[in-house]
Amino acid sequence: MAVNLPPMGDLLPIDGLSIGAAKAGVKYADRLDLAVMVLDAGGVTGGVFTKSAFAAAPVVLARQRVGAARALVVNSGNANAATGERGLADARATCAHVATVLGVQESEVLPFSTGVIGEFLDMDAMRRGVDAAAVAVSPSGWADAAHAIMTTDTAPKALSRSATVGGVPIRATGMVKGSGMIRPDMATLLAFLGTDAAVSADVAATLARDLAERSFNRVTIDGDTSTNDSFVVMATGKAGGRVVDDTASSAYRELRDALAPVVVELAERTARDGEGATKFMTVRVEQGASAPECLEVAFTIAHSPLIKTAVFAGDPNWGRFCMAIGRAHVADLDPGAVDLYLDDVCVARGGLMADEYTEEAGAAVMARDEFTVRVLLGRGDASETVWTSDLSYDYVRINAEYRT
Amino acid sequence: MAVNLPPMGDLLPIDGLSIGAAKAGVKYADRLDLAVMVLDAGGVTGGVFTKSAFAAAPVVLARQRVGAARALVVNSGNANAATGERGLADARATCAHVATVLGVQESEVLPFSTGVIGEFLDMDAMRRGVDAAAVAVSPSGWADAAHAIMTTDTAPKALSRSATVGGVPIRATGMVKGSGMIRPDMATLLAFLGTDAAVSADVAATLARDLAERSFNRVTIDGDTSTNDSFVVMATGKAGGRVVDDTASSAYRELRDALAPVVVELAERTARDGEGATKFMTVRVEQGASAPECLEVAFTIAHSPLIKTAVFAGDPNWGRFCMAIGRAHVADLDPGAVDLYLDDVCVARGGLMADEYTEEAGAAVMARDEFTVRVLLGRGDASETVWTSDLSYDYVRINAEYRT
Repeated sequence: MAVNLPPMGDLLPIDGLSIGAAKAGVKYADRLDLAVMVLDAGGVTGGVFTKSAFAAAPVVLARQRVGAARALVVNSGNANAATGERGLADARATCAHVATVLGVQESEVLPFSTGVIGEFLDMDAMRRGVDAAAVAVSPSGWADAAHAIMTTDTAPKALSRSATVGGVPIRATGMVKGSGMIRPDMATLLAFLGTDAAVSADVAATLARDLAERSFNRVTIDGDTSTNDSFVVMATGKAGGRVVDDTASSAYRELRDALAPVVVELAERTARDGEGATKFMTVRVEQGASAPECLEVAFTIAHSPLIKTAVFAGDPNWGRFCMAIGRAHVADLDPGAVDLYLDDVCVARGGLMADEYTEEAGAAVMARDEFTVRVLLGRGDASETVWTSDLSYDYVRINAEYRT
Repeated sequence: MAVNLPPMGDLLPIDGLSIGAAKAGVKYADRLDLAVMVLDAGGVTGGVFTKSAFAAAPVVLARQRVGAARALVVNSGNANAATGERGLADARATCAHVATVLGVQESEVLPFSTGVIGEFLDMDAMRRGVDAAAVAVSPSGWADAAHAIMTTDTAPKALSRSATVGGVPIRATGMVKGSGMIRPDMATLLAFLGTDAAVSADVAATLARDLAERSFNRVTIDGDTSTNDSFVVMATGKAGGRVVDDTASSAYRELRDALAPVVVELAERTARDGEGATKFMTVRVEQGASAPECLEVAFTIAHSPLIKTAVFAGDPNWGRFCMAIGRAHVADLDPGAVDLYLDDVCVARGGLMADEYTEEAGAAVMARDEFTVRVLLGRGDASETVWTSDLSYDYVRINAEYRT
């Protein structure tokens, strides 16, 4: 159940970054479930993390330590969330073990966990996994790691891109699992982007925020947010060239814009692999007075269970779109200025059904595996895009039966 | 598919208020689908209406006219929403016809519609229905009207209560259909409360707001809000006694508290009759620093598709509750201070699983038709309660297949 999800394809090694995966047996038997990533000296990291008040133990540590980390350790099967002081001690002990094995400082190791909430980590399994993953590290370990971080994802999600930035050829490889809380208590969005571009630690932090804002923060499956969501940028600097150390510079914008397509594509893939997804929907809101109001309308549409069930049914029930646009918190919105399109079919113009619109034309668009809903607010020049999937019987089945 | 929904029981006539229903054939064949309510001279009305920017034509008129209305007209089957100028003209023409038939001014008639969005009213059917309903008016017309306003509700929802306020015996009878957008494009919450208590027009307006805030604004099925949501209080004054004309008075508080149980019960019944509902869940948040933060946590839980599917499955997946509490927008929430109960079973204490908690005990509570989730935030004295239902296969089926 995934909508046109592309295979990973060839993943480019990133010079200065080695990755290893192992079957630790944290929860799953006989599958890769732990990965270690190691940066050569001189690499920098930047990250963004869940805003949940119930942030998991690994998130608490990773948030403090991100910046000049030398190693990352990720496990699936157990989120180490809602585990209190013991959870924090377990996350620290995991980092200490990684530090010993790899010869770095404990404070230079970032932990990440995804899986069941409220259970304690099997520390013997974690240590065994770290030992095995450390032996396996190589620049070509991305594909194994993309498998290791999966929970109920139907397929690994990773891709690479090359670009030339400031006259210097650079590479980027990224991987992601989950999509917000699309995967209930086995949930979490974890995303990692490696690049050989040269940036300062401060710039890496801004880069992570800016890239997440354009990509992972534009995807929603069911509006829920996990205790463990994390996105980390790892920049090794091995591509050479001048170090980007100013986020106000054109060099920064050029680099950001070169990396954005990788994370946008990863974000779209999480929606394509959304829980029970049978449709992939792009929601584009244009002619808004501001970007925030465009996002408000787009997310109200993308979160609406009534629209998501209509999308599942392929039913061009445009009243539901009016309902969602109407209840979005946009001050002084004039319904008489709103146009609505399904792909190239104009459904409503000026808040009323378009004269030329037919149910058949709307149904033909909504029968497609993927389509775009376009809303024109008629009050400005701002526009925003978000991605989502439908709400199917399988969404209910997966979430209702997950633990039974 | 409704959870322990009580029958209407005996509905008390309200002196000074006559009600008639008819089979207008607006959309449904051979069922009651139109109701007229008439107040004797001296009656007052107060109302609250949807905040949707796409408010339907009848809502636009009713909102302007509420206060000293003499008659109400309600149809099901067509929402007269997203119908532009023609929709407004149709709503005005309906009111004009009611005014002629009943001998009141057009501006004294409030229109209400619920049903499909984006289609024009069949005005011949509306006029025929008004004619027939006007002939049928009587003080005992509540039960017929409760049927007439239904769309896909599984049963009519109405009840009566008697009380003594300021030494004067009063009566109240109320009816409701739908629950927020639980009923997709046949959606809308419409609620009407009649009482023979004596209040000023200003007080009726505040009373409608205060009662809605305690009842209908505390119910959610899927978080969507309709284009037509309306709640109107009709007070005839026939009970006699001193007219309540000051919302700061103890007489006002006494009246409000006497009427509140009627609307709270009506609101609960809309959740019990929620779309595809198999469970009725009360979410109570206590020990908050403020009422708004309690409501934020309660609604975040009540809206979460992950929790609602777990409730459907009867799965005491307490990590999902932590997730929802964590992502609610509550500044500086300390997870270590949060306790969680399912009915009388303590699931988590101080943000961690309670020592005495067992899955069996949690599962036993969630196997019940109805139960209460209690969250103690450990940071104050405020508390709030909301009501909701689960997210079942039938929710998806009803919403996906509704128009096909």
